[in-house]
Amino acid sequence: MNYKTIEYLVDDGILTLRLNRPDKMNAFTLDMSDELTHAFYRASDDDDVRVIIVTGAGKAFCAGMDLSVAGNVFGLDETRKPTLAEMAEPDNMPGVRDSGGKVTLAIYDCKKPVIGAINGAAVGIGATMICAMDIRLASERARIGFVFGKIGIAPEGCSTWFLPRIVGMQQSLKWMMTGEIFDAAEAYSGGLVYEVCAADELMSRAYEMARQIADNTAPVSSALIRQMMYRNSAAAHPVEAHKIESLAVFYASKVDGKEGVSAFLEKRPANFESKSSSDMPPFYPWW
Amino acid sequence: MNYKTIEYLVDDGILTLRLNRPDKMNAFTLDMSDELTHAFYRASDDDDVRVIIVTGAGKAFCAGMDLSVAGNVFGLDETRKPTLAEMAEPDNMPGVRDSGGKVTLAIYDCKKPVIGAINGAAVGIGATMICAMDIRLASERARIGFVFGKIGIAPEGCSTWFLPRIVGMQQSLKWMMTGEIFDAAEAYSGGLVYEVCAADELMSRAYEMARQIADNTAPVSSALIRQMMYRNSAAAHPVEAHKIESLAVFYASKVDGKEGVSAFLEKRPANFESKSSSDMPPFYPWW
Amino acid sequence: MNYKTIEYLVDDGILTLRLNRPDKMNAFTLDMSDELTHAFYRASDDDDVRVIIVTGAGKAFCAGMDLSVAGNVFGLDETRKPTLAEMAEPDNMPGVRDSGGKVTLAIYDCKKPVIGAINGAAVGIGATMICAMDIRLASERARIGFVFGKIGIAPEGCSTWFLPRIVGMQQSLKWMMTGEIFDAAEAYSGGLVYEVCAADELMSRAYEMARQIADNTAPVSSALIRQMMYRNSAAAHPVEAHKIESLAVFYASKVDGKEGVSAFLEKRPANFESKSSSDMPPFYPWW
Repeated sequence: MNYKTIEYLVDDGILTLRLNRPDKMNAFTLDMSDELTHAFYRASDDDDVRVIIVTGAGKAFCAGMDLSVAGNVFGLDETRKPTLAEMAEPDNMPGVRDSGGKVTLAIYDCKKPVIGAINGAAVGIGATMICAMDIRLASERARIGFVFGKIGIAPEGCSTWFLPRIVGMQQSLKWMMTGEIFDAAEAYSGGLVYEVCAADELMSRAYEMARQIADNTAPVSSALIRQMMYRNSAAAHPVEAHKIESLAVFYASKVDGKEGVSAFLEKRPANFESKSSSDMPPFYPWW
Repeated sequence: MNYKTIEYLVDDGILTLRLNRPDKMNAFTLDMSDELTHAFYRASDDDDVRVIIVTGAGKAFCAGMDLSVAGNVFGLDETRKPTLAEMAEPDNMPGVRDSGGKVTLAIYDCKKPVIGAINGAAVGIGATMICAMDIRLASERARIGFVFGKIGIAPEGCSTWFLPRIVGMQQSLKWMMTGEIFDAAEAYSGGLVYEVCAADELMSRAYEMARQIADNTAPVSSALIRQMMYRNSAAAHPVEAHKIESLAVFYASKVDGKEGVSAFLEKRPANFESKSSSDMPPFYPWW
Repeated sequence: MNYKTIEYLVDDGILTLRLNRPDKMNAFTLDMSDELTHAFYRASDDDDVRVIIVTGAGKAFCAGMDLSVAGNVFGLDETRKPTLAEMAEPDNMPGVRDSGGKVTLAIYDCKKPVIGAINGAAVGIGATMICAMDIRLASERARIGFVFGKIGIAPEGCSTWFLPRIVGMQQSLKWMMTGEIFDAAEAYSGGLVYEVCAADELMSRAYEMARQIADNTAPVSSALIRQMMYRNSAAAHPVEAHKIESLAVFYASKVDGKEGVSAFLEKRPANFESKSSSDMPPFYPWW
């Protein structure tokens, strides 16, 4: 629980996860990978957390892998010759599996909405990490780059799955193929970030959006929405969504749905009491 | 055929399906679910229908489930404890399956292009229903909301499958996570609606677009295009599309294609005689 | 190697593939299908080619199938009655398989970034062919049309797979359902083309973008990016991307990645020596 590379601060339902190596532009390390992974799983079952905001300490969001370490800078064990068959269980492949993907898979599994507040440079894993978040806000000072081709490697952080679902294939390929660094305005016009803010308004806008979710919606609903959107949208036929949606509405309608409908009819705020830690419906997880 | 909650009006190749409970803001009921489902299957094999326009009577498009009914307002049988295994056959699950998804699956199965003409409030099932339509036009008075999180339930109408395919993941998650109501301008900038019209021009614009399709294209082609786009785009590899497309062009080229090419070369309107009720190629349906 | 319908010109790492039947508006023929297919496979393993630009000779890009030929204008053997089961091996189905899809599947398989430079009319297969390319630039004189419904046939060229991934379902359905011809401005606002250029600046802009890729990125990285983006984005779960990405970064980090990181730290251009013809990592192809 004592993180060295990140801060984990919960206040009034909102977790601020801050990448915290400001003297290194929050460069990513294996420790940061482990700590972020831990933090997302922890927040997923922490009922004091309704919404997560991820940002960086200092001027940068995350400048990518820390290239100053000795040996393989990506933390990989170069003596191995891994095969695709061996990758069937990524947890069994330390020294091989991508440390960025470990984090984005933890984000994918999380029950809580995740807002990225991109305060500055977001490059490499800094750029791919934000693709697994639900909504991205950017300071006008943000600079983003999927620079993998330029340094002779390949995209990671599950970005080849997430990015096209956000911005479509053409924009994804343009950014990935060139490896170019682009600014907040291009990130907005290309569809990667939802809003661009003045640098000194970024966090207040992120908290405003987080409050809008935390104050008005049910925790179990948020968790269901998050998992249903990512998983059902990747199904081959809408009937697969129909099966899950039917059960989700069925069980939620008996609990939070009663309070929600009553509050709506009585024109008062709803008081949802179900917890996403313990009160998910019996068919959850369905995968 | 005597619908109580909708109107089914065919004129010169265009079916206008009007949600028709104007004193209730066209609130959705189990009867409306059954009648809409029936109407889409009927229109699918009605050769007098080339294009379908869906709109609402009065000021609203559809204000969501009718929350004024007694018992479970979603029409669900709360005594049951359904499992995912039981959902394998949704038709066998009355009292459990989502009544909105029943309608959107009927739209998905339909052979005819479907244009949504959103004349006013489209909330809850009113918002998700339009996601299964092919093209959405909105009056400047439209207000749309995926409000499920706010009333403590979960998205339905197969919207977790359809919405991200229209507007991408970030916009989908923003609207779903907040449950906010947004106006026509935001629906347009977010990519949900194709055009925003003055209120008194909405229907004429919808008929204009429907005419453009009905007067210029072949019925069998329309049916093939509709099913190929939704199904092939969800395949894992483009060769799956190639197999279907090859057969579609092969069989169509022998019939309507000959007339279409002749008309093109002779610079005259084509006179397509094939019917989508009886003249679909032998490999259809391929699923 | 002596192409009759196309030109294959390599200069300083960039292949210009020019459709070359200018007196016929570069109308597509079975010969052109075979020659384009051959050219994309050839370029895929030609280390002198880093980036491919596709354009048309004369005023048009490609006006669609050449409708002036005798018999079935799509080159199909009308005596056959093909089934979906028979389509399992498209290579075994001459006279049945779509000649446009043969080309777009060759583009899909290609290791090199592909830029479409749409200099004029791109209709039918001219429109669908560009959907399989990575980035599309259009002259302000471009006119594009998915006209299949108007001539009584159905979409081809794997466009029912590619197009929705570029522009989303609503825009795809609008263009396909109406069969209308639209201009470069609409192609841009709809998301199909990345940029619109003055007619006399189209090729210089295409070469500029090609140079940006060729001069700054590693060949093996480009090939990995291309295949990972198309294939991983269609997976059901991000962990499938994680498996491939982990291996791609693992193997690349030992070779080009070392040079890329050194060059970055030394603030000099990288000198990547790996070839995509012979030096792809051992897990490639993984499918």
